[in-house]
Amino acid sequence: MRMRKKKNGDIRLQSCGSLWVQNPADLKGKWQSVFEKTAPLHIEIGCGKGGFIMQLAAQNPDINYVAIEKSIDVLVLAVEKAKNSDIKNVKYILGDAFFLLDVFEKSECERIYLNFSDPWPKNRQSKRRLTYHTFLEIYRAILSKNGHIYFKTDNKNLFEFSLNSFCENNYSLRNITLDLHNSSYEGNIMTEYEKLFSEQGMPIYRLEARPMANA
Amino acid sequence: MRMRKKKNGDIRLQSCGSLWVQNPADLKGKWQSVFEKTAPLHIEIGCGKGGFIMQLAAQNPDINYVAIEKSIDVLVLAVEKAKNSDIKNVKYILGDAFFLLDVFEKSECERIYLNFSDPWPKNRQSKRRLTYHTFLEIYRAILSKNGHIYFKTDNKNLFEFSLNSFCENNYSLRNITLDLHNSSYEGNIMTEYEKLFSEQGMPIYRLEARPMANA
Repeated sequence: MRMRKKKNGDIRLQSCGSLWVQNPADLKGKWQSVFEKTAPLHIEIGCGKGGFIMQLAAQNPDINYVAIEKSIDVLVLAVEKAKNSDIKNVKYILGDAFFLLDVFEKSECERIYLNFSDPWPKNRQSKRRLTYHTFLEIYRAILSKNGHIYFKTDNKNLFEFSLNSFCENNYSLRNITLDLHNSSYEGNIMTEYEKLFSEQGMPIYRLEARPMANA
Repeated sequence: MRMRKKKNGDIRLQSCGSLWVQNPADLKGKWQSVFEKTAPLHIEIGCGKGGFIMQLAAQNPDINYVAIEKSIDVLVLAVEKAKNSDIKNVKYILGDAFFLLDVFEKSECERIYLNFSDPWPKNRQSKRRLTYHTFLEIYRAILSKNGHIYFKTDNKNLFEFSLNSFCENNYSLRNITLDLHNSSYEGNIMTEYEKLFSEQGMPIYRLEARPMANA
């Protein structure tokens, strides 16, 4: 599904005040300064319409969140949703995983969420998958010691690819499930996309990954 | 499916000459002495009717194999199949994974095959699964440096359990596939059981695991 192009995306984002961080690279190493209180920093790469991060942030007022989305049309929806709430602990930025190193200082993030990332199914597209080794090296850099990636997808091939990629690139894994909604995992927050797919009975795959210290 | 009890299992095994090793603990640390030539030692835990190990051994004359099966009725079929062939590089023993430490010296095995092990589906049975942590510690002891476990199953829950168990117990994983027969993996030898299940279109899960050095 392609979204219809939103008119005046920039203007609409600007009208959302400080929720949208226009120049995130200026905050590298200083993210705590834009939140009401100092707290662990968790980020979501590809927040979509933002339903997941909003619910997560409401449940965890003692965590600061940064939601990243590469499509301005989608980001507008997420930020406007936040504007109409009283959530204080989420900031939104326009961008993608390539520029994380420009935006976050080494070890600045305690957790990264990757939810239903684009599977890029063709072999020649594998470099674009958010669990390709080049991205895993970026995450390794910005994650704090004991920081984790929380990854879930409905795409079996992407999950298989990711399992191997994490293992090959010296990440340790835990809480792997091949059917999240029939697992013992508690507290799952569903994304918009996840609701659609799980209603069709598709299994959701999930894991948590932590970069191990280099030997 | 329960097999009908074979008559005279012991006698039939004894008639197979040196293929069946009656007192395997006597060979601990000395397994090379029973083969025609010195070669890496690979073992299969739960060889069933032995179709897999026979084909594998025929393809790899420069590997020595030990096939282990806990049911005498099933072992008889495997050994008699070997007797009727000209395979020289497989020995058979009656037993299960609990007694591996009595039978193999530390680091004596280069590879362990676990094919379609009993999933023991109930939670209270988890200790019996061949990827339960107590077994992983046994495998760690008998595997040589860089030795691997080659594990495959049609059982999604057992595979999920095993992924977690390997990760929790300091094994590194590689070549993980959630659908072996539609993967790029080459040279797969199907077990009798695998043929049945794959004909029904069930996916086969597979991975390779190596114990990491303790930190």
